[in-house]
Amino acid sequence: MSKKSMLLNSPIEPFLVEPNLNANEILQRMEKISFQGRNLAIARKVWNSMLEDNVLIFLGIAGALSAGGLRLLIAYLIQHRYIDCLVSTGANLYHDLHETRGRSHFIGSPNTDDQLLQTEHIDRVYDTFVDENEFIDNDIWISNFATTLEPRNYTTREFLYLLGKKLWQETSRDGILTAAFRANVPIFCPAISDSSIGMGLSQARHKDPQKGQIDVIGDIAESANLVIRRRPTASIVFGGGTPKNFINQAAVQAEFYKPGGEGHRYALQIITDPPHFGGASGSTLDEAKSWGKVSGNAERVTVHADVTLALPLLASALASTAQERLKKRRAAKFLLEGPIISVDGIPFPENDYETFKND
Amino acid sequence: MSKKSMLLNSPIEPFLVEPNLNANEILQRMEKISFQGRNLAIARKVWNSMLEDNVLIFLGIAGALSAGGLRLLIAYLIQHRYIDCLVSTGANLYHDLHETRGRSHFIGSPNTDDQLLQTEHIDRVYDTFVDENEFIDNDIWISNFATTLEPRNYTTREFLYLLGKKLWQETSRDGILTAAFRANVPIFCPAISDSSIGMGLSQARHKDPQKGQIDVIGDIAESANLVIRRRPTASIVFGGGTPKNFINQAAVQAEFYKPGGEGHRYALQIITDPPHFGGASGSTLDEAKSWGKVSGNAERVTVHADVTLALPLLASALASTAQERLKKRRAAKFLLEGPIISVDGIPFPENDYETFKND
Amino acid sequence: MSKKSMLLNSPIEPFLVEPNLNANEILQRMEKISFQGRNLAIARKVWNSMLEDNVLIFLGIAGALSAGGLRLLIAYLIQHRYIDCLVSTGANLYHDLHETRGRSHFIGSPNTDDQLLQTEHIDRVYDTFVDENEFIDNDIWISNFATTLEPRNYTTREFLYLLGKKLWQETSRDGILTAAFRANVPIFCPAISDSSIGMGLSQARHKDPQKGQIDVIGDIAESANLVIRRRPTASIVFGGGTPKNFINQAAVQAEFYKPGGEGHRYALQIITDPPHFGGASGSTLDEAKSWGKVSGNAERVTVHADVTLALPLLASALASTAQERLKKRRAAKFLLEGPIISVDGIPFPENDYETFKND
Amino acid sequence: MSKKSMLLNSPIEPFLVEPNLNANEILQRMEKISFQGRNLAIARKVWNSMLEDNVLIFLGIAGALSAGGLRLLIAYLIQHRYIDCLVSTGANLYHDLHETRGRSHFIGSPNTDDQLLQTEHIDRVYDTFVDENEFIDNDIWISNFATTLEPRNYTTREFLYLLGKKLWQETSRDGILTAAFRANVPIFCPAISDSSIGMGLSQARHKDPQKGQIDVIGDIAESANLVIRRRPTASIVFGGGTPKNFINQAAVQAEFYKPGGEGHRYALQIITDPPHFGGASGSTLDEAKSWGKVSGNAERVTVHADVTLALPLLASALASTAQERLKKRRAAKFLLEGPIISVDGIPFPENDYETFKND
Repeated sequence: MSKKSMLLNSPIEPFLVEPNLNANEILQRMEKISFQGRNLAIARKVWNSMLEDNVLIFLGIAGALSAGGLRLLIAYLIQHRYIDCLVSTGANLYHDLHETRGRSHFIGSPNTDDQLLQTEHIDRVYDTFVDENEFIDNDIWISNFATTLEPRNYTTREFLYLLGKKLWQETSRDGILTAAFRANVPIFCPAISDSSIGMGLSQARHKDPQKGQIDVIGDIAESANLVIRRRPTASIVFGGGTPKNFINQAAVQAEFYKPGGEGHRYALQIITDPPHFGGASGSTLDEAKSWGKVSGNAERVTVHADVTLALPLLASALASTAQERLKKRRAAKFLLEGPIISVDGIPFPENDYETFKND
Repeated sequence: MSKKSMLLNSPIEPFLVEPNLNANEILQRMEKISFQGRNLAIARKVWNSMLEDNVLIFLGIAGALSAGGLRLLIAYLIQHRYIDCLVSTGANLYHDLHETRGRSHFIGSPNTDDQLLQTEHIDRVYDTFVDENEFIDNDIWISNFATTLEPRNYTTREFLYLLGKKLWQETSRDGILTAAFRANVPIFCPAISDSSIGMGLSQARHKDPQKGQIDVIGDIAESANLVIRRRPTASIVFGGGTPKNFINQAAVQAEFYKPGGEGHRYALQIITDPPHFGGASGSTLDEAKSWGKVSGNAERVTVHADVTLALPLLASALASTAQERLKKRRAAKFLLEGPIISVDGIPFPENDYETFKND
Repeated sequence: MSKKSMLLNSPIEPFLVEPNLNANEILQRMEKISFQGRNLAIARKVWNSMLEDNVLIFLGIAGALSAGGLRLLIAYLIQHRYIDCLVSTGANLYHDLHETRGRSHFIGSPNTDDQLLQTEHIDRVYDTFVDENEFIDNDIWISNFATTLEPRNYTTREFLYLLGKKLWQETSRDGILTAAFRANVPIFCPAISDSSIGMGLSQARHKDPQKGQIDVIGDIAESANLVIRRRPTASIVFGGGTPKNFINQAAVQAEFYKPGGEGHRYALQIITDPPHFGGASGSTLDEAKSWGKVSGNAERVTVHADVTLALPLLASALASTAQERLKKRRAAKFLLEGPIISVDGIPFPENDYETFKND
Repeated sequence: MSKKSMLLNSPIEPFLVEPNLNANEILQRMEKISFQGRNLAIARKVWNSMLEDNVLIFLGIAGALSAGGLRLLIAYLIQHRYIDCLVSTGANLYHDLHETRGRSHFIGSPNTDDQLLQTEHIDRVYDTFVDENEFIDNDIWISNFATTLEPRNYTTREFLYLLGKKLWQETSRDGILTAAFRANVPIFCPAISDSSIGMGLSQARHKDPQKGQIDVIGDIAESANLVIRRRPTASIVFGGGTPKNFINQAAVQAEFYKPGGEGHRYALQIITDPPHFGGASGSTLDEAKSWGKVSGNAERVTVHADVTLALPLLASALASTAQERLKKRRAAKFLLEGPIISVDGIPFPENDYETFKND
């Protein structure tokens, strides 16, 4: 076959509209079109490959997904173990907590007078409003909870597990933190000090200088050890931000502790940043290969889209087809209570460094 | 009710994933989330309002939608009269013609070596490939067709009608041009000289200097007269570009000929450009109000997304719910053969200027 | 030298701030940094190479550059023959005419109430305002001028030359149209029907159906013949839009009439669109190579930036260093009055097709 | 004066190119144009207002500014006290350290084969390369340094001060960390665990579980107390990311400890993200007003541009005009050695909470 024939061997098949298509059928028809539509269809395939290959799946979430109405969707992914480990911005966890505590975000408008909003104590996130007084109450609640903990350093993973537990005990409501607690799925929050959860913790320390101690360096060790225990791994990233690099970094740091990995074997990102400004959020998955963050022959796809627009369709189509894969899947079993994490029944060695065990 | 209560009266309802959701159910659930997800859900509502209100609906398409696999989707919208008048870039019509003539676009990659592609005579549109030799053959076909026409000026509307007719006679295949011919839906192409259709026409003139004469100023008069005949009107824009402004301009020019309109009563755009660089593609629908292009109280929505990702879901959901509306709809009936267009049985006056008739 | 040494042979040199740096020194220091800063520095080098190599330089302008305060900068580039042929959107020429006729654009705000603006007859372009009544007066002026022309088809190149001449005679003011008239630099406007100039022309036809006839297909032939006469060529694009493809298309169409070109030998674009949505404005210069629009080994650079931010620095630095190059440059000499263009003293053959002459 | 006259009172003045313009003259001429060009000119004015008003100026940096060649520019801003407190991503500090240790970043290309780069141990940041082995050596250096510190929790502010001191003692080279050390300018790094500095710290703990303890919650308290001590304040943000919100959060948290502030009185951001996806990086300064992060009547400006392109011109123009302002400026005097920060000679109270002092 000529070089040209090889290049021109897979024709575009125009999308055919019909009434009553379901999510799955829509994405199937999008597989043979172009641009970001096709990428979204490929994203489902890559995710399904992750599920079939029994890899450990990290999910990173940045951007206002919880405030924007996707927290129960993320909770669904956690509960049904479409993913194994969540890495989140603080804001997504805080806005989740807000609703799990029974409060709401509201449909607003990006064109409202912001001085009026300030006067009325309404905080705005683009087209979404929230009652600032309820936020202040959340901060106090977090601060009160943090003061009940024994005075020592907590990784964000341990602290967030305890926070999810407390929330579940108090509310019995679904959400990201409560779903992760119930499913024993670890959550890391590398930039916790850049969030209202961090502000709540600093208020705890205001009350008691021994409280509100967070060990973010411990998170690095733990996340790298997760990679080591359950190689190969996969990275799903919504929005970019600190979770994107933290997940990639885990694969690199794992090599330091215990060489022999390959970088994430699968990588899927839904982002809005373009690569050409050099920021991490917009960086390509090819670039990640140069660093060893992503395997040289990783199955991978980037979708350039707003997550609130792309994810409902993607998740709905996954939910329609992944049931069998999820049943067969051998997901990691974590125990998350306490400073030492356990994976598949084997705790991390005392100082969390897998290589200690191998020495 | 306090000002604050009025602002905080519509809570976000988190998107609930379930297996087997159809397009309609997905968009319904997206109505109460945030950001571009909600905007896409609102887009369906605005479009449905257009259908119910019996307004004349313009659709503008820019960006590589035909090459990208959406030509039969656009044809579907034409055939079922979700729209009444198409304004297109030349490329979208040319790539449509390419496939209607039985050729293909191919799934490629944005990372292929472009010098290799040039050597192999393969043209690339981001991740889509096409055989350059087939394009050259299209150009000849267009040029041959144009030389068969009697030597006079043709509006793009008339020329594209005849082109669609020729294509249908020769191929009996569905596509944008053939669907528009069969449904008597007018197509305007304001930047026809910036496309391979224009190149084909210039080649016709190469053979015969009397041929390949296009009257783009006539298009302005005709499009304004469409507005005058069938006020109120609506604007749907995919991608921006020349179609976006041409559709808006029709509303402004209509005021010149016959004051009394209001600007488009409905406006929906799916675009990727942000407004802050000042270009027309990214301009807001509020800005359009200042010009009188869009009514001061127009029902309107902007979705910031790639059309190949957003439109399949939107069109599928519309198709699931609009059947009754389409049946009841009193769509304009056009006669498009010849230099004088007729709307609902009444031809435009000889020089196409509605006001002549009113003098 | 090892492969690694070859890849790591050009260190970044951090930008050193000092007081009193001029444009030239700033761009020199930007050559050794990264991302879009470096690209802007490279843009100056590519442009200087164009000037030294005596190639025919096309400049395409899209986006609201004239409204935005860059019309005299563009006029400067024309007057001093940094470029040889302008391809413009209609809006940029119309907004230029507006100011050349002695009116202003005004500094406004993107957050003004657009219904208020409509009431006050103020049109908004992002953060720029204009008096709508003055625009209506422009339309009448254009319309009146067009009715003075003898009734036949005019390429946009011929019409815009005559428009520039009229403006110069009436105002003696600098601007894009007047500078091009005085420097005998051709202007093409492929989407003229998508602009207020087109609206003015349609109003001319309203008065006299024989007037306001524009031949956009003739533009294709002329632009291709410019390429043929003065190969090799260069493409500079600000903003994308129809000018970008029209300039590229000229190189392709030239191959049809007279094979043997190479595509543009130099290519420089300052754009804001990313490539991944598949639109022409954001397409890469590598993609252009696959089509033969740009030479396989073209010197080329893409700067991802708003033109109003990037161009003042770039043009100032060029102006500081290009004087000698401009003096030595053998720029094409055009005669633009009448339907037949002449280049370096030799008119195009009667039907504008260079190959006729060679047959 | 009529409403219309008030709206149309400030005409655009087209940018006039001349040879030998300096940075200052270029920005002056950009003040009266439109879009992002004008915003950059306004940015200089806002920054100058900050300097004149003796406010405490936070600077946040995200995106690959150090790798991209701007580290000495940032160091210049620190050294000359254009700013008072830096909030940075870990990567910008790590890439700064890399060069201060005498290594380089290299000019590369975004189109290089990333598998080849991985094989050659070259890491890529868009168009910038770095030697991975040198990075591994940095990690070891950081890790070795961290093990020399006494075993207790360190805020990032204290740790980074000590890191800058060590670097200066060892290299005597200019850079961000060394300039901040020498000028006693505090640096916060809220997402330190999402960076190679964090990885170095985790390796320190690998050697000694008592080492590498970072107290990011303490950073929140300290940053809020800086606001309290030196109200009013200003926020300058390059790129967005965690520094943007951390700086805003400081103003909010300050209200918790000691009400009476107003939010940042000045705000300037150079960002590439648009607001419509709801992420923090792209959020508007108006939105920040609703939260009380930015004063209701703050002097403020957003420039939508790549920092590597916009900042060299802006900083050069500032450097040409700010000398007098800098001399007169009463910048805060910090003492940063040790866990307790001192401002203008007065240490924070023992637990860093300003209100304790007021009780």
